[in-house]
Amino acid sequence: MATNPAYSAIGKRLPKQDSESLVTGEAKYLDDLKLPGMLYGRIFRSPHPHALIKRINTAAAESLPGVKAVITADDTEKVKFCHLPVTPNKLALNDEKVRFVGDEVAAVAAVDWETADKALGLIEVEYELLPAVFDPLEAMQPGAPQIYEDCDNNIPARIARNFGDVDKGFAEADYIFEDTYKTPLIPACSIEPHCCIASFDHLGNLTFWVSTQNPNNYQKALSQVLKIPQNRIRVIRPKVGGAFGNKSVILPMDPIAAFLAKKAGQPVKLVNSREEEFTTTRGRYAMVIQLKTGVSRDGKLLAREAKVITNNGAYNNKATGISLLTSNRIGNLYRIPNSRTEAIIVYTNTQYGGAMRGWGGPQAHFAVESQMDTIAEKLGMDPLELRLKNANQTGDTTPWGWLIASCGLSECLEQAAEKIGWQEKRNLSGLRGVGIASVLHTGSGSAGTHGAGNFSEVLLKVYSDGAVGLIVGESDIGQGSDTVLSQIASEVLGVPLNKITVASEDTNFTPPSMGTWGSKVTFISGNAVKMAAEDARLQLAAAAKRILEVGDDARFAFVDSRIHLEGSGQSIGIEEASNYCVQKFGKPVTAKAVYEPPNANPPDPKTGFGNYCPTYAFGAQAAEVEVDPETGRVKVLRIVAAHDVGKAINPLLVEGQIQGGVAQGMGYALFEGAREKDGRVVNDNFTTNKILNATEMPWMEEILVETLDPHGPFNAKGIGEPPLIATAPAIANAVYNATGVRIKELPITPDKILRELIIKREAEGCSSEKE
Amino acid sequence: MATNPAYSAIGKRLPKQDSESLVTGEAKYLDDLKLPGMLYGRIFRSPHPHALIKRINTAAAESLPGVKAVITADDTEKVKFCHLPVTPNKLALNDEKVRFVGDEVAAVAAVDWETADKALGLIEVEYELLPAVFDPLEAMQPGAPQIYEDCDNNIPARIARNFGDVDKGFAEADYIFEDTYKTPLIPACSIEPHCCIASFDHLGNLTFWVSTQNPNNYQKALSQVLKIPQNRIRVIRPKVGGAFGNKSVILPMDPIAAFLAKKAGQPVKLVNSREEEFTTTRGRYAMVIQLKTGVSRDGKLLAREAKVITNNGAYNNKATGISLLTSNRIGNLYRIPNSRTEAIIVYTNTQYGGAMRGWGGPQAHFAVESQMDTIAEKLGMDPLELRLKNANQTGDTTPWGWLIASCGLSECLEQAAEKIGWQEKRNLSGLRGVGIASVLHTGSGSAGTHGAGNFSEVLLKVYSDGAVGLIVGESDIGQGSDTVLSQIASEVLGVPLNKITVASEDTNFTPPSMGTWGSKVTFISGNAVKMAAEDARLQLAAAAKRILEVGDDARFAFVDSRIHLEGSGQSIGIEEASNYCVQKFGKPVTAKAVYEPPNANPPDPKTGFGNYCPTYAFGAQAAEVEVDPETGRVKVLRIVAAHDVGKAINPLLVEGQIQGGVAQGMGYALFEGAREKDGRVVNDNFTTNKILNATEMPWMEEILVETLDPHGPFNAKGIGEPPLIATAPAIANAVYNATGVRIKELPITPDKILRELIIKREAEGCSSEKE
Repeated sequence: MATNPAYSAIGKRLPKQDSESLVTGEAKYLDDLKLPGMLYGRIFRSPHPHALIKRINTAAAESLPGVKAVITADDTEKVKFCHLPVTPNKLALNDEKVRFVGDEVAAVAAVDWETADKALGLIEVEYELLPAVFDPLEAMQPGAPQIYEDCDNNIPARIARNFGDVDKGFAEADYIFEDTYKTPLIPACSIEPHCCIASFDHLGNLTFWVSTQNPNNYQKALSQVLKIPQNRIRVIRPKVGGAFGNKSVILPMDPIAAFLAKKAGQPVKLVNSREEEFTTTRGRYAMVIQLKTGVSRDGKLLAREAKVITNNGAYNNKATGISLLTSNRIGNLYRIPNSRTEAIIVYTNTQYGGAMRGWGGPQAHFAVESQMDTIAEKLGMDPLELRLKNANQTGDTTPWGWLIASCGLSECLEQAAEKIGWQEKRNLSGLRGVGIASVLHTGSGSAGTHGAGNFSEVLLKVYSDGAVGLIVGESDIGQGSDTVLSQIASEVLGVPLNKITVASEDTNFTPPSMGTWGSKVTFISGNAVKMAAEDARLQLAAAAKRILEVGDDARFAFVDSRIHLEGSGQSIGIEEASNYCVQKFGKPVTAKAVYEPPNANPPDPKTGFGNYCPTYAFGAQAAEVEVDPETGRVKVLRIVAAHDVGKAINPLLVEGQIQGGVAQGMGYALFEGAREKDGRVVNDNFTTNKILNATEMPWMEEILVETLDPHGPFNAKGIGEPPLIATAPAIANAVYNATGVRIKELPITPDKILRELIIKREAEGCSSEKE
Repeated sequence: MATNPAYSAIGKRLPKQDSESLVTGEAKYLDDLKLPGMLYGRIFRSPHPHALIKRINTAAAESLPGVKAVITADDTEKVKFCHLPVTPNKLALNDEKVRFVGDEVAAVAAVDWETADKALGLIEVEYELLPAVFDPLEAMQPGAPQIYEDCDNNIPARIARNFGDVDKGFAEADYIFEDTYKTPLIPACSIEPHCCIASFDHLGNLTFWVSTQNPNNYQKALSQVLKIPQNRIRVIRPKVGGAFGNKSVILPMDPIAAFLAKKAGQPVKLVNSREEEFTTTRGRYAMVIQLKTGVSRDGKLLAREAKVITNNGAYNNKATGISLLTSNRIGNLYRIPNSRTEAIIVYTNTQYGGAMRGWGGPQAHFAVESQMDTIAEKLGMDPLELRLKNANQTGDTTPWGWLIASCGLSECLEQAAEKIGWQEKRNLSGLRGVGIASVLHTGSGSAGTHGAGNFSEVLLKVYSDGAVGLIVGESDIGQGSDTVLSQIASEVLGVPLNKITVASEDTNFTPPSMGTWGSKVTFISGNAVKMAAEDARLQLAAAAKRILEVGDDARFAFVDSRIHLEGSGQSIGIEEASNYCVQKFGKPVTAKAVYEPPNANPPDPKTGFGNYCPTYAFGAQAAEVEVDPETGRVKVLRIVAAHDVGKAINPLLVEGQIQGGVAQGMGYALFEGAREKDGRVVNDNFTTNKILNATEMPWMEEILVETLDPHGPFNAKGIGEPPLIATAPAIANAVYNATGVRIKELPITPDKILRELIIKREAEGCSSEKE
């Protein structure tokens, strides 16, 4: 780790600016907002996984006193939506067909929730039931029920990647491993459910309050679905109570609220019930990954092949991009000279998936990192050694064209292993063991492929008292980015944190923005903030030169809200320079900066070859577990999470991100996941789809490896998603180390372990009997 | 008038974007906003004009159930405030002394208005009464009660100006005229009274909703008075129901709301009662103007001298600047080679004055334009001829250093006279007559003297669908500036008006701003919008060149949301170019522009010599009146208002400004004005301080003279204040023309006319008897 300069704000352990309001309950969320004359909306959803809509009768609902609007598809613009570049195929309200249990058919707005619920019960829909299919492997078979007329075998997309000579690699391999891994659909489980309020004025301008991580994206999508120009839709984002990727793209409820409000002529609020959250809001895609790896006797990875089958669910959203990401993690984690992947997207009559923390990474890593241990065992190598031997390194260009600007993977592996007590604990007696797993993820969003860009624009103003206002398009959704961005501005301008404010919640004012996703805000917006602050600093320095009557070569230090002339005892207050700019230069100190990362190797849209991220985040997690032989229950005793963060702008918040990620990773490993029966999600609440609570967290330690990324602001890179990704495979490997049982399907529930333990015991019994 | 290019948006008669919501009552004002847990505040005010505070007992009020906070000066930071550069001497709550009836002493916040009112009645204050003085001429005398210890003769400021050789001018004059004119304090009479809501979060951040024309100024002032950094105060401005300069600077109620909210730990709303509006909110300064003018026999103005005595009231606000403006209007309307003025500010124990539409112009013009008719009569000249002979002209530099970039004064005089039927009606029989008056005002705010600057910063973004968002710091307070600014952007970018939105109401987001005042928004912000739009246009053109594969010298026309390559049939949509910028240039189409007007002749702070406005607005109004000989009542039959607006961006809105100005000018002429008895305003409601309503308006005609100002955006200049200024003297002159009675003190009430008519009749009787 290089020597750091003496930073004033960077690297400081500062609490999130809003932490106290969260803890005390002072923080207000959208459901706390009530507009005058506001109505309450509810959605009528299909009880069938696949059916034709023959007739909808809303007359009884409409005549219920207190009901102000009932809408069906005919009240909408019938614009299909989803995430480009795939074909949009979701309607706010379906007109002809429903394709999963929970699909939107009609909606009501009434004077209170009770009336709205009652009205739902009065809507009559006549369906013609169709055969349904829920398993993607079945849906791919000839003769399976066809969910879309124009889509044979229910496969809307297949995307192949091929780098190096994979056949040659396998031919040269001493060993070849083939395994199939499965992961379930994971609901985001934000504590705050999806909520929105739509309100039109007499000109047809829409004000839309919504809990989202991407107000600009909502504005754009609503514009398309409602057929209203973007300037006439104002999206206001209140404090967000959890998002995790799940609040980055509109749900049908969003335009539904607007259509209800339009028809009723009154504002309408929609809030998902917890059951709707679990059954209709898009989760992390369920995948089946068939993974084949060829290695040399001495443990060099020579070739890898993967088929990634993604259960798209009933409608398109982000399956293409996410499955590609799963593919490329498989091809780029570790130095693998030859790899090819195929991503296959499959429609089924189930809830559809979407963005969720990790964006295809958790699935990929569960497969790759589970198999790495299998390989190591076969080779008689320590799994840690196998990983270190193949680890990516700073300066690498991968066969896929990725430029690894900074990489602390080896350090993370070594430090996580050391801290967990790797050497001592690999051979513990009893059903106790340790496991380790690596992680490769973006540390900075994407490189701006798919024509979407990956920029951030930031506005900065210096008030006349020297305080600073930042205006950004990216949302702090709980991760603390406002605090981090303030620290960056504080470092550049020498203004204390309590004199810096970030504003970001209103599309009428904020710069165009890509939103908060892909672990990008610290890197992308952080760079933009740094640029804007440096611009303001130059303006203030120009004033300081005039006030202090010094030449153009004078140099200044900005410390404690003062501008100090270097090599002298002279200084002036920032407020003095700020006022001088207004009074003498005729303009206030304001700055506007746009950062888009440079890319020396832009992706080729055809082959996919090229660099996808401005920088990559690496890490490693080690887990120690104990398995109860009677119940099969896994107790996680400790987790060590070592992450390469480039430079921790705020170690306290980085640790918070890691702790939260590990909690989600443990849930992914051990108990989360939608369980469906006949297309119906049966565990639609926190009792049956348990998430980890604070008291259930194991002892854990976070290790921050600072590789000083060359492109990051103050050398930082993102840490939003990586902490989640390595946890499940680390636990799976620890379970194997403890029990000798390898579970290849998440979650690793007691019943699966118990079954495998019994099989193993019987097999051992058999074999010892035979001997 | 020069030939105009074929504009698509400029010059169009478009209704204000929010007009329908105003007419239907859909528009929400601040008093419509209710926050959870919000309390209602009331202010305890002094019943005495001058007294020492000996003791305040709030115990009974505090113990009243429902009362959540009672505050006195000890609960405040005791920071004195006002408008710089004069000495701040107003406290939010007085600790030692009260200086006018209505002065703030204590305040309460309670769960409802009734409880708050009741609590006010329980506050006991013991005063030691002091002798008071209400008339500025008396207050200036030796021995008058002294309102401030450190201020002899109650005169805090005296400012003299002297250009040319006035004594020589008088010596050369054939006639010298000396008259004294008086104008009363005019309350702003906004239909929406002052209203604010203060709400703190746990970090001590203040959100402050307030009906204001200058949110940034409130943020700054509150920061000083509350001792909170500016970034931690968020000022949000809802729709404003009238402001007229009166909502540009904080009132004591604003920090009082914040101190109450702080003490109570709950949000607090304060709304002025109508009585408080009339008695405590600062009106247009009452002045006494002693005017002396020397003219040659043939009607050339040779010298002018004025003493402007301003009743400052009890506390400092804007008297210095306003009295200087009164002075300089006297010296610069018409070509006068020699002039000197003295402005004298005098404390009295009355309500203090502040900014109010016209900023010293109405007082100056009443004096000058009344005397012009007196001069003309003496010379046997047509008053119109006298004015035309001395009128300012385009290209003039006045002896005070003003640069007259464009001037339509002569055209306005001629057209107003022609339209009123000047020649025919000057000698009507009966008590009927016509009068005319000129106006000189700023058309663009100030030139940035007093170190305050006169800039506007504008942000502009082009959405991905080609819609446009403007973000400005200046507020549309009913005058329609949002519509005008949208038209300017529309003209540059070829985007229709319904795809352009202006956002301006939130200091967390808006650029630093000087606010809305001085008839400046069209000129100053309009120029900034034009610059920003031109910047965006260049960015879009750069994309268009790449998309259409044409060279750098390609030229484009932006029409109907499309970018047309000139000399070809090719075009692309603006949305296509906007998206291209994101996808290929890596940055959205956004622009930031700051406009501060150039000034070739900046004012000398010592002598005052120099140019004060980027451009000047001229105009003339003619009035026809009939006076009832029995009652003395004046009936205004018609008003013709001709105004040089440079170029009317939106003639409909310009006419609206003129109509509103004339209505206020007629009130100023005939019935408005605070009447005080022992320092107490006795006409504190709309019954006794009548303002004109729509049905009482006379027939009127607006004439827009377009001189095409060289600096204005699309050659426009401001029209906010000028229409008010000429009305009162035009009516006074018409009254004289009708009756032969010259009223030199506003308002021209029936009793004054009647008294003068009687005196005149008696004098005529006497003289005829004598003959």
